[in-house]
Amino acid sequence: MIVILKQNPQQAQVDRLVAWLNEQGYGTNVSVGKQETIIGLIGDMSNVDMDLIRSLEVVDDVKRISEPYKNANRKFHTDDSVIDAGGVKIGGGHFQVIAGPCSVESREQVKEIAKCVKAAGATLLRGGAFTPRTSPYSFQGLREEGINILLEAKAETGLPIVTEIMDASHLPLFADVDVIQVGARNMQNFELLRALGEAGKPILLKRGLANTLQELLMSAEYIMASGNPNVILCERGIRTFETATRNTLDLSAVPVLHRLSHLPVIVDPSHATGESWLVKPTSVASAAIGADGIMLEVHNDPPHALCDGAQALTCEAFFDVMGAVTAVRSAVFSAEE
Amino acid sequence: MIVILKQNPQQAQVDRLVAWLNEQGYGTNVSVGKQETIIGLIGDMSNVDMDLIRSLEVVDDVKRISEPYKNANRKFHTDDSVIDAGGVKIGGGHFQVIAGPCSVESREQVKEIAKCVKAAGATLLRGGAFTPRTSPYSFQGLREEGINILLEAKAETGLPIVTEIMDASHLPLFADVDVIQVGARNMQNFELLRALGEAGKPILLKRGLANTLQELLMSAEYIMASGNPNVILCERGIRTFETATRNTLDLSAVPVLHRLSHLPVIVDPSHATGESWLVKPTSVASAAIGADGIMLEVHNDPPHALCDGAQALTCEAFFDVMGAVTAVRSAVFSAEE
Amino acid sequence: MIVILKQNPQQAQVDRLVAWLNEQGYGTNVSVGKQETIIGLIGDMSNVDMDLIRSLEVVDDVKRISEPYKNANRKFHTDDSVIDAGGVKIGGGHFQVIAGPCSVESREQVKEIAKCVKAAGATLLRGGAFTPRTSPYSFQGLREEGINILLEAKAETGLPIVTEIMDASHLPLFADVDVIQVGARNMQNFELLRALGEAGKPILLKRGLANTLQELLMSAEYIMASGNPNVILCERGIRTFETATRNTLDLSAVPVLHRLSHLPVIVDPSHATGESWLVKPTSVASAAIGADGIMLEVHNDPPHALCDGAQALTCEAFFDVMGAVTAVRSAVFSAEE
Amino acid sequence: MIVILKQNPQQAQVDRLVAWLNEQGYGTNVSVGKQETIIGLIGDMSNVDMDLIRSLEVVDDVKRISEPYKNANRKFHTDDSVIDAGGVKIGGGHFQVIAGPCSVESREQVKEIAKCVKAAGATLLRGGAFTPRTSPYSFQGLREEGINILLEAKAETGLPIVTEIMDASHLPLFADVDVIQVGARNMQNFELLRALGEAGKPILLKRGLANTLQELLMSAEYIMASGNPNVILCERGIRTFETATRNTLDLSAVPVLHRLSHLPVIVDPSHATGESWLVKPTSVASAAIGADGIMLEVHNDPPHALCDGAQALTCEAFFDVMGAVTAVRSAVFSAEE
Repeated sequence: MIVILKQNPQQAQVDRLVAWLNEQGYGTNVSVGKQETIIGLIGDMSNVDMDLIRSLEVVDDVKRISEPYKNANRKFHTDDSVIDAGGVKIGGGHFQVIAGPCSVESREQVKEIAKCVKAAGATLLRGGAFTPRTSPYSFQGLREEGINILLEAKAETGLPIVTEIMDASHLPLFADVDVIQVGARNMQNFELLRALGEAGKPILLKRGLANTLQELLMSAEYIMASGNPNVILCERGIRTFETATRNTLDLSAVPVLHRLSHLPVIVDPSHATGESWLVKPTSVASAAIGADGIMLEVHNDPPHALCDGAQALTCEAFFDVMGAVTAVRSAVFSAEE
Repeated sequence: MIVILKQNPQQAQVDRLVAWLNEQGYGTNVSVGKQETIIGLIGDMSNVDMDLIRSLEVVDDVKRISEPYKNANRKFHTDDSVIDAGGVKIGGGHFQVIAGPCSVESREQVKEIAKCVKAAGATLLRGGAFTPRTSPYSFQGLREEGINILLEAKAETGLPIVTEIMDASHLPLFADVDVIQVGARNMQNFELLRALGEAGKPILLKRGLANTLQELLMSAEYIMASGNPNVILCERGIRTFETATRNTLDLSAVPVLHRLSHLPVIVDPSHATGESWLVKPTSVASAAIGADGIMLEVHNDPPHALCDGAQALTCEAFFDVMGAVTAVRSAVFSAEE
Repeated sequence: MIVILKQNPQQAQVDRLVAWLNEQGYGTNVSVGKQETIIGLIGDMSNVDMDLIRSLEVVDDVKRISEPYKNANRKFHTDDSVIDAGGVKIGGGHFQVIAGPCSVESREQVKEIAKCVKAAGATLLRGGAFTPRTSPYSFQGLREEGINILLEAKAETGLPIVTEIMDASHLPLFADVDVIQVGARNMQNFELLRALGEAGKPILLKRGLANTLQELLMSAEYIMASGNPNVILCERGIRTFETATRNTLDLSAVPVLHRLSHLPVIVDPSHATGESWLVKPTSVASAAIGADGIMLEVHNDPPHALCDGAQALTCEAFFDVMGAVTAVRSAVFSAEE
Repeated sequence: MIVILKQNPQQAQVDRLVAWLNEQGYGTNVSVGKQETIIGLIGDMSNVDMDLIRSLEVVDDVKRISEPYKNANRKFHTDDSVIDAGGVKIGGGHFQVIAGPCSVESREQVKEIAKCVKAAGATLLRGGAFTPRTSPYSFQGLREEGINILLEAKAETGLPIVTEIMDASHLPLFADVDVIQVGARNMQNFELLRALGEAGKPILLKRGLANTLQELLMSAEYIMASGNPNVILCERGIRTFETATRNTLDLSAVPVLHRLSHLPVIVDPSHATGESWLVKPTSVASAAIGADGIMLEVHNDPPHALCDGAQALTCEAFFDVMGAVTAVRSAVFSAEE
């Protein structure tokens, strides 16, 4: 960290600041230039309150020169992490497709969809038992019963399951779930993240609607610092001024996250775009840009879906998407040989 | 709600759509114009999945013509709500100042600050016992002990207290708290909102960093629909492309929320700007634009604050802000006579 | 257009509104429902001031049900437009790669780069003669001399040239240019757009940093309404809260624009990301998502470039990108057969 | 400027970088720490390509430690600038109200409005002769005739006039205009800014919809570096995800700009909010936060305005706003005594 002082500081001011910084536990390295005086801080910077230092009277600005996350940082873990998700590997060249309905509605619905997505090549089954909805008047999910239905579908198809948690107190219900999803609106629910760090299971962490990639990595850090290294990052669109799509899919997040972190990165084209006709082109682009997987909403009867029917693919459309994604994956792969 | 069909639909398509809409429980009113065919929906629209209808093949677009919230809606409750916060009224002409430290650090700290803010005219005391932090390595709050310290300060000064909750499971600790705050990052933690709806106490609901005013009202609706009408809305800055301030304070949210809803609206200039020197001008502007209160961070020793020291006012600076706010309040008030 | 009235309007108010709307030249169609009264407007709606109607006392809201652009609208021109850019076709299945330096620096520089990009498969040469820079102290371009250098490179390599215009008064200098580029900061320089509408040449219109896709199409409409149908749309990243990349590349803009309009859509990964190492993955994704072309910055000596050196590819890196793009293009193409 | 190197650089790499930086004209000051090596750059940094340096292989990051603007910078001009706008002073404690119609429609309209706003206390008259419109099908202004009408109104009322320019080639028509306005969409039309720098007249420079305050100051710098110190900055709302208002008024821009620059800062509540009922509260808040003036749209017949009628005040409403603004101004003023 570098502290830049205001022009022509008095020596007494500089001395007081250095003393105060030392008192806070930082080593200091003062460099007096013609135009400016700079103090380099030495020590563990992950917990520095930059805004506070910036507000001190003699200080002009403070610049961070290293990332505030450690466990998620590729600098300290150069190889790609490969996460084992119920026997299926994600990351480090392993590409997976997670598919299923937005919300679990019935035993029949989930089984029908599970069979379809497995036949088309999906390797994990998703479905919402606890479903966060903007309106209290919308369908709120089957909750515990929903998880049981997913577990039955897993038993029948062999597909590991991914489902969302909304509150740490529900954790006991997730004992047999393979991957626990944290939704975009809970990305900074720090009590939940800490609890998931203790849970040990793979966590699929979705980027918040208005969160930077650094904040996403800081939330991963919460889970990892609590002892759980199995975090899968998920880009699902961010909120911008554009209204033509539900969110703006930030696909360059994939290579940026891969550079900053060793964790696998998947993309959720269904939520990012909000419209089923956009799912195929964005899925293909996700595969092309190097994502470690995609997560898609598939429904046996979109017009009667209780949640997000507009963005759900029919089973037939899902087969079509899988074909295109596979073709692009092999083109990108062979081009890299 | 209005459903606009694609150009020149076939009669059979229109009939199928009308039948399907009726099956979903909506009355319909078909109007065939020269250029377009429109179907008006009749009934309770608070639970309609607009995106789903929009995705149907014969549909071009869907437009909502009434708000999806009821309890928070001024249309159904024309008078301003006045919330009783531990004996202090907020809303409907009652302006209150909530002040105190970002986080509770010690008994001595809180008592010293409480006395100061009371002397300067604050009417509620704030302080964080549970403090959400972006980094797992930052100070995380004194938790239960912090609430006890606040309650002691309340006993001593008579100021009702406001403090943040981070998880529904902590609710028993908040039994004697006067106003429970929901932080920006939890604005769409729907499990927490529902639990707070059952708690009955006044809730101070902060707008999320990237949430629209309609979403803020929908989150208020979650609390109100669960039986708690005592919601205080709080504008605290939104996330934009601008980096000169920590967030962008959206002051026009105050009159817009007052028009849409009967709930009181306060402003948090400290978090919105992130810098103490900006707190005075934005506090004055908040009073001038008609806020029902402001919430300010005050610290006895900002350079040693464990959280957000950069935006905390000293006690002396808080007196200065109070003077300016009072002067502007009386100017706006007498101008309206 | 639909005008929704406030609840329970008086008949006299409705009559006055209808009379006023008729006076403005619109036909009207009043529909009185149980909950709301709606007036449908009939006629040419491209020039309606929706905000004004919305502000009338009896009006609750106004909803547009058709797009405000005509010439650019796919509804009235279902086939893809194919633009002839100096003998090279763009759109309707014709994919082109435009490459060259950010700014023209010297005859030698441009010739060296032109030969390289042609050898690697680029089909148009780009280079800035007039270069818009945020700072008045940055290199501002060789201007007229720069255009002459580009024309010489065209004569030597046969590559048609693309270069940016900054002011309508410079148009005579662009007489032999094949494609005139409008930069993001000039997307709503309406005087310039109108002048380009009269120029007849192909126009490469870049999306503004904070402009919606509808606004981009309205700016295309300015050019087309002035008599020039040869508009190529260009997605180049938008401004969001994220700071990890220079801009946020909105790749889903490609399929959305293709659905709304018949005009070709290309992508500029260099400006969207601002970093050369991100150009390859985003170029590949652009091809995968169905863009009609990409525009890339290539420099013979990036560390000494006078403009945007950080995002420029070396010639060697450009060959690598071309290989990957070609592989993905053929994968997507054969998958669609 | 500070250049931070990657961890453990080789000495040869550092030497090459230093040599290259010297070659570019910068002095260097290398500081080797335990964790990182930092190079401080010495000299004129206003023209550095930070992105380019950041892209060099051995470089991890580059941080600017001084602002890239000089003429507009308060560091080099500590006193407030006071601009003489046709005999009326703006800035340094001089508060002015600019009022008039969005667009000049007729001689009678302008005269009627001019008399009204003068009677209510406005000190400058605004009106659009050249009016930038998103749609080519909207009213585009009376152009030269509009300016003549404004000049007649000036002759009759004595109010100096403010009107917008859209293209440098129109400058001769602005010879008798007192203040030339640059619209938000032209804030980075650098050819226009340069031409206005040579024009000498006061320039009212509006912030672009998605431009940072630093970019606004850089555009002011273009005008000032070309020889014209008379720049008035104008906050008029920025583009965000919120749709409840036309734009999001960023009122904290006023104190931030006052800290960074000596130039006067005014606010345009009409365009920022887009709705006339929001103009009064935001005008009052603008005065309270310390703006040097406000610019308001007033129309004698808003329902028949050819442009932006929804945000125009009637003459009667303007009187009301003026009263409230005056009351708040004197409250803030006396509080500061």
